[in-house]
Amino acid sequence: MTPRDASSLAWDKMGGLIPAVVQHAWTGQVLMVGYMNAEALDATLESGFVTFYSRSKERIWRKGETSGNRLSLVSVQADCDGDALLIAARPEGPTCHLGTGSCFATEAGGIAWLDRLSGIVRERAAADAGESYTARLL
Amino acid sequence: MTPRDASSLAWDKMGGLIPAVVQHAWTGQVLMVGYMNAEALDATLESGFVTFYSRSKERIWRKGETSGNRLSLVSVQADCDGDALLIAARPEGPTCHLGTGSCFATEAGGIAWLDRLSGIVRERAAADAGESYTARLL
Repeated sequence: MTPRDASSLAWDKMGGLIPAVVQHAWTGQVLMVGYMNAEALDATLESGFVTFYSRSKERIWRKGETSGNRLSLVSVQADCDGDALLIAARPEGPTCHLGTGSCFATEAGGIAWLDRLSGIVRERAAADAGESYTARLL
Repeated sequence: MTPRDASSLAWDKMGGLIPAVVQHAWTGQVLMVGYMNAEALDATLESGFVTFYSRSKERIWRKGETSGNRLSLVSVQADCDGDALLIAARPEGPTCHLGTGSCFATEAGGIAWLDRLSGIVRERAAADAGESYTARLL
């Protein structure tokens, strides 16, 4: 994303802020959601480290500025209508202030995957036994 | 997530709305970002299909209600401070109104992965040759 692309985003929909979803560049895990204003996006692109506008601090906030747990930028993509950003990043430590890799991983590691596996098994169990090996097993 | 969990979310931070990131339950691809109010989250949990509050339509909007491209719910997780939701879903067709699987996949399929691969190669190339096979190759 270039500064020119950045200027065409839908900044007006939420008072100058756009939600930015940070995804681990290699694993695909969603790490956190923050907000960027145009200055934060510029700072992200220029510094190579994910930088937000903090609604609570009411200022530009480079993720990891205190903790050291920065998010090294890999890529920025806008969505189809320019009102959301998807950031691929390489985390330099736990992303969440609670010490977990993801702000969405408040359970002990791995539980989310168990949930997903359980979902797959439930889905397959309900499928036609002719089409699903799992359904035949159960 | 139970209705009880839902009531403890930080609904007040954005006038009753919370951003909801939808991630493909099996591949991890981020499909879209929408907004939920409490009614939309209840409808999502009750119906098993991802339901938003549409800011443009100013009403509850079940994703796919017109196109048929619904998002079958797998799980809902709140983040550490309860002001963002991560939805794992199984899409029943292209999620984006442009016909792509993801609203963030406006490039032709696969380009995002090339970007990532390119990022990995750049990173490894800059690493110490004693630690990186790629650095030794280049």
